[in-house]
Amino acid sequence: MSDLVAFQAHRRRMNERILSSDHLGIKRFFHLDARAYEEGALDRRTKELLGLVASLVLRCDDCVDYHLIQCVNMGLSNEELYDALNVGLVVGGSIVIPHLRHAFARIDELRHLQEQGIHLELR
Amino acid sequence: MSDLVAFQAHRRRMNERILSSDHLGIKRFFHLDARAYEEGALDRRTKELLGLVASLVLRCDDCVDYHLIQCVNMGLSNEELYDALNVGLVVGGSIVIPHLRHAFARIDELRHLQEQGIHLELR
Amino acid sequence: MSDLVAFQAHRRRMNERILSSDHLGIKRFFHLDARAYEEGALDRRTKELLGLVASLVLRCDDCVDYHLIQCVNMGLSNEELYDALNVGLVVGGSIVIPHLRHAFARIDELRHLQEQGIHLELR
Amino acid sequence: MSDLVAFQAHRRRMNERILSSDHLGIKRFFHLDARAYEEGALDRRTKELLGLVASLVLRCDDCVDYHLIQCVNMGLSNEELYDALNVGLVVGGSIVIPHLRHAFARIDELRHLQEQGIHLELR
Amino acid sequence: MSDLVAFQAHRRRMNERILSSDHLGIKRFFHLDARAYEEGALDRRTKELLGLVASLVLRCDDCVDYHLIQCVNMGLSNEELYDALNVGLVVGGSIVIPHLRHAFARIDELRHLQEQGIHLELR
Amino acid sequence: MSDLVAFQAHRRRMNERILSSDHLGIKRFFHLDARAYEEGALDRRTKELLGLVASLVLRCDDCVDYHLIQCVNMGLSNEELYDALNVGLVVGGSIVIPHLRHAFARIDELRHLQEQGIHLELR
Repeated sequence: MSDLVAFQAHRRRMNERILSSDHLGIKRFFHLDARAYEEGALDRRTKELLGLVASLVLRCDDCVDYHLIQCVNMGLSNEELYDALNVGLVVGGSIVIPHLRHAFARIDELRHLQEQGIHLELR
Repeated sequence: MSDLVAFQAHRRRMNERILSSDHLGIKRFFHLDARAYEEGALDRRTKELLGLVASLVLRCDDCVDYHLIQCVNMGLSNEELYDALNVGLVVGGSIVIPHLRHAFARIDELRHLQEQGIHLELR
Repeated sequence: MSDLVAFQAHRRRMNERILSSDHLGIKRFFHLDARAYEEGALDRRTKELLGLVASLVLRCDDCVDYHLIQCVNMGLSNEELYDALNVGLVVGGSIVIPHLRHAFARIDELRHLQEQGIHLELR
Repeated sequence: MSDLVAFQAHRRRMNERILSSDHLGIKRFFHLDARAYEEGALDRRTKELLGLVASLVLRCDDCVDYHLIQCVNMGLSNEELYDALNVGLVVGGSIVIPHLRHAFARIDELRHLQEQGIHLELR
Repeated sequence: MSDLVAFQAHRRRMNERILSSDHLGIKRFFHLDARAYEEGALDRRTKELLGLVASLVLRCDDCVDYHLIQCVNMGLSNEELYDALNVGLVVGGSIVIPHLRHAFARIDELRHLQEQGIHLELR
Repeated sequence: MSDLVAFQAHRRRMNERILSSDHLGIKRFFHLDARAYEEGALDRRTKELLGLVASLVLRCDDCVDYHLIQCVNMGLSNEELYDALNVGLVVGGSIVIPHLRHAFARIDELRHLQEQGIHLELR
């Protein structure tokens, strides 16, 4: 099983577990988080790129994975992704490099899944 | 004098001071930083928005100021800026709110300068 | 005018400005933020202390100010505040010390306002 | 072997290794760290909750594990833990969510160990 | 009065205020902090440079000021300081640049004080 | 295979992958990063220690690994490494401790490889 498929399954299972706690504040936060990337004054592609770079400079691999899946699902090219990752690298510095290695491995994995006709759906 | 005009003057003076040190690594970094926001696979507007949100989640007011000036110079609307800032707020949490207050004050100041026909050039 | 009174006025004015933007995501986030500190499984005093220490380790002076005002309004003693700040200092390290200096100055200011019968209301 | 039992064993072994280096500064820091959570003006339960939320907003899974074990040992309920984690989520933003998933998995594991009569002692 | 002289006075006054609280944990932390930069397996100059770069990548202006004063007192040259700051810039990224501007302004101020025969003593 | 040998192989493979993307900005950043640790006004040993402590306070295990390998290759003793790590611990606080455990495990592994005559070359 690919790393991203495992991530997707773990993410779904634990999100369900968290929401089952019925904590109103947490539930609302999850809703708000999903809404932030919906079409608005900015389009969804731009917003996913914003989420990707914010995740990279804050150095969160799981968050990078999430936004890379969404970016690929929305048809962004590797060159566009590299350009966004480069902004994150320059803003965040060399401390970001391990997460850049992670991101490139995930991009290759996503393209490989795409070639096999596998589509990762996150919601 | 507006806060942003003072920021612009301080930024220019100190950047010149830094580059006068003739440290090759630092000079190259400044060059690389400027290049990261030039037209590429992604356009300049998108890249400035990426810089803005990265600056907001890393909670750097001076960096927020820099990218807001660039965003306004490139014709982004307030609604587009709010939508980008909202992504930064959700990703970065309530700790970002003081910087959101700062950003809104700067947006209003930039629109006020615009009405007076004042254009802030950063390079 | 005391620094905290100025902070309170600036905070109120800019929060109103932000909410006047009518961005649904931002408005909901502000509501969620306020709700997180309401009485629940944990009482309000404990939650304000959680907010204070989270603000200290994330090194946000404005957030420290906010929670210190709330903590004093809820009757927490200086000794309780010092004990919470010490947890933040040990978790966050010496990089937190400038913010600890800030926090102690604010505590003294709050006690001084209290002696004069001045109560800072944040909502 | 449960993840938390493995964490406990690794933590103990490496802490002993670190202290065997006989570096006076490091030894004193470890002592200071332990003392910060002892009964004082604030009780131990409150201090562990402070440590938990500080760990969550700073996004350190090992530190979250440590404080969750202590919180459960002190009798805090799931509802109290969720309420504390919610404060951390709102303060720290969606970047905290992967660590929230981690925390919920650990809470479930701790309750499972409790049902089996297994008590994790950290010192 | 120079900014650094004002910083020195504020730092001293507030540190005395903090220590007057008689919180044992906080007092011990301050002692431990001072000890970390004393001569040991590494010499004091190296340790001050470590403190300077750690402060820069964590983006704390007051901490940068403190270590710059110590570095200048120990006879480090501007070229050595620039080389250390460059490491911090590359590790920490462009988000560090506003603090680099701050550091260069402080170095110039320290050299100016030196020319006037003014020596800033921090303890 | 030791953890560090695996890290070295993964690092090399993914760096090659990243550079194969032919993104000019990213390539230049990698070059700049390598140059920052070359002999200059400060010697290479001091610069590697600066990189180590910056990595520790920013809590990046991969970056700590990289600089520990370089430090050991340059002949730094365990006592010198402990002294540097202590500065990072005091600056960064207890949140750094899991990464300190990681660093000590890596130091022991590096000394073990040294005894076997194994030298890890990073470029």
